[in-house]
Amino acid sequence: MSGFSRFTPLVNALPSTIPFVGPEAIERQRDVRVKARIGANESGFGPAPSVLEAIGRTAGETWMYNDPENFELREALALHHGVSRDNIAIGGGIDGLLGEIVRLVVEPGTPVVTSLGGYPTFNYHVNGHGGRLVTVPYVDDREDLEGLLEAARREDAPLVYFANPDNPMGSWWDAESIVAFARALPDRSLLILDEAYCETAPAGSTPSMDALIGQPNVLRMRTFSKAYGLAGARVGYAIGTIGNAQAFDKIRNHFGMARISTAAALAALRDQEYLRDVVGRIAAARERVAAIATENGLRPLPSATNFVAIDCGRDGTHARAIVDGLMEHGVFIRMPGAAPLNRCIRVSVGPEAEMDLFAQALPKVLSAVR
Amino acid sequence: MSGFSRFTPLVNALPSTIPFVGPEAIERQRDVRVKARIGANESGFGPAPSVLEAIGRTAGETWMYNDPENFELREALALHHGVSRDNIAIGGGIDGLLGEIVRLVVEPGTPVVTSLGGYPTFNYHVNGHGGRLVTVPYVDDREDLEGLLEAARREDAPLVYFANPDNPMGSWWDAESIVAFARALPDRSLLILDEAYCETAPAGSTPSMDALIGQPNVLRMRTFSKAYGLAGARVGYAIGTIGNAQAFDKIRNHFGMARISTAAALAALRDQEYLRDVVGRIAAARERVAAIATENGLRPLPSATNFVAIDCGRDGTHARAIVDGLMEHGVFIRMPGAAPLNRCIRVSVGPEAEMDLFAQALPKVLSAVR
Repeated sequence: MSGFSRFTPLVNALPSTIPFVGPEAIERQRDVRVKARIGANESGFGPAPSVLEAIGRTAGETWMYNDPENFELREALALHHGVSRDNIAIGGGIDGLLGEIVRLVVEPGTPVVTSLGGYPTFNYHVNGHGGRLVTVPYVDDREDLEGLLEAARREDAPLVYFANPDNPMGSWWDAESIVAFARALPDRSLLILDEAYCETAPAGSTPSMDALIGQPNVLRMRTFSKAYGLAGARVGYAIGTIGNAQAFDKIRNHFGMARISTAAALAALRDQEYLRDVVGRIAAARERVAAIATENGLRPLPSATNFVAIDCGRDGTHARAIVDGLMEHGVFIRMPGAAPLNRCIRVSVGPEAEMDLFAQALPKVLSAVR
Repeated sequence: MSGFSRFTPLVNALPSTIPFVGPEAIERQRDVRVKARIGANESGFGPAPSVLEAIGRTAGETWMYNDPENFELREALALHHGVSRDNIAIGGGIDGLLGEIVRLVVEPGTPVVTSLGGYPTFNYHVNGHGGRLVTVPYVDDREDLEGLLEAARREDAPLVYFANPDNPMGSWWDAESIVAFARALPDRSLLILDEAYCETAPAGSTPSMDALIGQPNVLRMRTFSKAYGLAGARVGYAIGTIGNAQAFDKIRNHFGMARISTAAALAALRDQEYLRDVVGRIAAARERVAAIATENGLRPLPSATNFVAIDCGRDGTHARAIVDGLMEHGVFIRMPGAAPLNRCIRVSVGPEAEMDLFAQALPKVLSAVR
């Protein structure tokens, strides 16, 4: 077991907890097989056929490092969003980019504002750099813009994390409120606006690029992991001022992107017709999940994402029993980690077969836990 | 251009230099097309056909995150090397793992020992964490084991980097010397033994696993980027004591590996017959490169890697002119960055067609620069 004797004091103080246990690990630990993989907000609808073609086409190129400047992908994203290529930084999913922006800003003791029960991987990175998390409770199952603003001011926090739409609750704010929040934040506070789920959000809930692109204290993050169906490819991007996008170049692993992944993301971006189609299927599946919840006497929360948080009416212990019970039936879901959000379970939407398995298992599990 | 006002002082002090400019960037800057991509020590022989099949098979799974524990790949590597799964940490190539181990050990001002002209990406990570590089000159175009040992002791350096075989010179030490070096190092100095090129090295130059696996101040690094032909997949691994392998879990991006990449690495590992075959082709191509150099009045250095350093007999300016001149002919190569190594150019081996292009262009370039 023995390790090297001189890891940094910060490292020695870090707990060995990780943000999420993967479904494969649960399968190994509990000796069950996942039949419905609807827990990690992946897209069971998969990427576009055109993306699978692109993967096949580029497989033979995988002996080459990827272009470290990610030129083509940044160019395509710039065109897509109506910004400059230099406004964009590419990374290994939003998770990877969050690790980088935290490293750029956080030193031991730095206060960082986020929501109580918000994205655990962000907290993991903040802890990993010795930051001090300042958490603001959700209000009515939404992240509390006023509370976050107040905390940022009070703490003079250089970093504020906010997801719109939100994970794990699926809730959202309208674009005007987000823009007002971003503009009200002190210059000394950098807003990480995590928009992982923006493709599935209702019209009017995502600020235009123009509204925030000039603001040096805003960094927006997007991903190909959710609606685009490429979670396993690990491609995300940050959009911000040129100075902010280029800051990543000082510390990122320049040859860190997988070549096939980058090609897949480029193909996915080009197939907006598929995206529109899959967003429709996600919306329909959300309604299906909500209907299943209602039929079982539970309360589905409105969702702008590819998952539905379902209020199970009691506490975290009860919700955990439902999560564990579903896994016994091969249905992998997750749940929020903090009260009062953890009265809910979180079900990712997916194709009919997965939804059917959830519909079949849920009443059995509920009657067992009652 | 304006960026956020509160990046850390360390970040603000970092230069914007990057370890390597990619061939795609050179193509864009100079408006030439690379016809022979033999500069980044990739393998133009490509991965095994069985790997391409595995990529095709797993393309449809890319909507799923990769197993964050990398269980299957670690299991296979453990079996392959005769160690425990818990001795192995997976990362985004050796580059990614180097960034992580530096973060685990280096704080601002920490002395870090490496060779003058050694792997620039390691230095990039050390600088990125504020470490102080202590460099030891090569002796006879080999990394100087005695000099590195002396520097580690003198500086009480917690981190020492050493590559065997070496990049950029292609030189190597025998296994006994490496083991003696590792055992002579103080407990307080962690040796990063970068073995990226070990698959192409002569018998007797790579220490057995047993020799070093119990030593908490040794971490060996391997990759699928070189002989296995998967540079674009970004899969590497560290082998060390359980405590050292698990230290990565405290800071790594647990969901950071691409799913197709991991499957490709697993398939590559299983196809040792292809590896043996390609290692033979690499050896033959090394001889071809050496012969081309000799025919042109240059001196090829012995190489244990998939590239050949060629002494061009003068200084860095001269070698740079040859590198630039070759690029005009579409032949992408690189060269060492520090004197006196930079009297050499570095040519990665590859298939016949690429070697032919090099053979055709070199005499033209040499007569132009003379």
